[in-house]
Amino acid sequence: MSAEERVKELGLDLSGGQTPLGAYVEAVQTGSLLFLTGMLPIAGGKPAMVVRAGETVDVERGRAAARVAAMNVLAVARKHLGSLDRVTRMVRLTAFLVGVVEAEQPKVADGASELFRDVFGAERMSVRSVIGVASLPLGMPVELEVTMEVAD
Amino acid sequence: MSAEERVKELGLDLSGGQTPLGAYVEAVQTGSLLFLTGMLPIAGGKPAMVVRAGETVDVERGRAAARVAAMNVLAVARKHLGSLDRVTRMVRLTAFLVGVVEAEQPKVADGASELFRDVFGAERMSVRSVIGVASLPLGMPVELEVTMEVAD
Amino acid sequence: MSAEERVKELGLDLSGGQTPLGAYVEAVQTGSLLFLTGMLPIAGGKPAMVVRAGETVDVERGRAAARVAAMNVLAVARKHLGSLDRVTRMVRLTAFLVGVVEAEQPKVADGASELFRDVFGAERMSVRSVIGVASLPLGMPVELEVTMEVAD
Repeated sequence: MSAEERVKELGLDLSGGQTPLGAYVEAVQTGSLLFLTGMLPIAGGKPAMVVRAGETVDVERGRAAARVAAMNVLAVARKHLGSLDRVTRMVRLTAFLVGVVEAEQPKVADGASELFRDVFGAERMSVRSVIGVASLPLGMPVELEVTMEVAD
Repeated sequence: MSAEERVKELGLDLSGGQTPLGAYVEAVQTGSLLFLTGMLPIAGGKPAMVVRAGETVDVERGRAAARVAAMNVLAVARKHLGSLDRVTRMVRLTAFLVGVVEAEQPKVADGASELFRDVFGAERMSVRSVIGVASLPLGMPVELEVTMEVAD
Repeated sequence: MSAEERVKELGLDLSGGQTPLGAYVEAVQTGSLLFLTGMLPIAGGKPAMVVRAGETVDVERGRAAARVAAMNVLAVARKHLGSLDRVTRMVRLTAFLVGVVEAEQPKVADGASELFRDVFGAERMSVRSVIGVASLPLGMPVELEVTMEVAD
């Protein structure tokens, strides 16, 4: 099954995405690599979740936020490429997290990684880094930095 | 207008840059991609600004620090390439910030992004990630991780 | 001397490595670039060192942890490539550190960079970013995000 067929089967609504908050763009392709802006859990144009300093984000909420950010990855990639079927491989995912305890960070990042696996297939999974940081733009708990391999 | 002509018009002094603090180099080119070391707001061989634990960096100071780091990006890239006119595209910018409140992080990162846009043009803008971190080498408030596309 | 000869001469045991903690893989090659998962100081299947919130990691312990993570970089790269002699260039290293004071962050990162230099040679050194973060998976003090250039 192709990525676009899986999107349909999973009932994913990719009409969203995010727009630049400054002097940059959402996607840059060079050769067969597609680089994406750090994707945040923005839905309907605003943060789907905000975390305050010192607050702890549990696995369930963290995974949900990671999934919203991952939906924006898919939405922006499709907008740039025309179709997700042009994605030949997920290459690198760096997940920056705020307020997630160390033992649960991999589980939270899986909220994004599992969506990518479900859409592109286990044979196209990326490498991954998970980093607990102090804060993210507008107080959001997750930011995903993604690089993909694409076909021309 | 070319990047080098814009540098001249903007009156930018790119005689600075930074030198390695360990077992690494400032720039690596592979194929048409140029990877740069994390650039810091170093001027005249020392930190242009230092932030203490718990201190808040306001937009104006943060933007100034980001711009100094961005000048080092340009200085190091020119030293490696011979001319900034060989830069065909800014690809990825990750801006790590210390002490900047969440709502202002995009504005501070724009201190770097806007300089790149002014030099290379809006049609060559990069993708961007902005991350609030705990600390950076020597106590500096900004570090810029940059990847560029270059012509041979 | 080749990288594999240096590994032998240095007496490095690369039988370890790490395994995925979620829906991702340890290495992805696209064209001549090899992207690796964030490597942690895991030895014998568990964290070689854990840091608690607010704890300070001194240079000696930090360097030792960085070196263990760097051994995992070598182990995973060799497993993927068959031989480290296929590495033509270290390209990018981002070292995320927890609990290391600002002035000592470059020295701690050198625990990894110096191992790479000793194995691949000074003429193949990468660019580097060093970032002090809030926390890392399972409480580990170092994570290394590495990109290499490889020959087919």
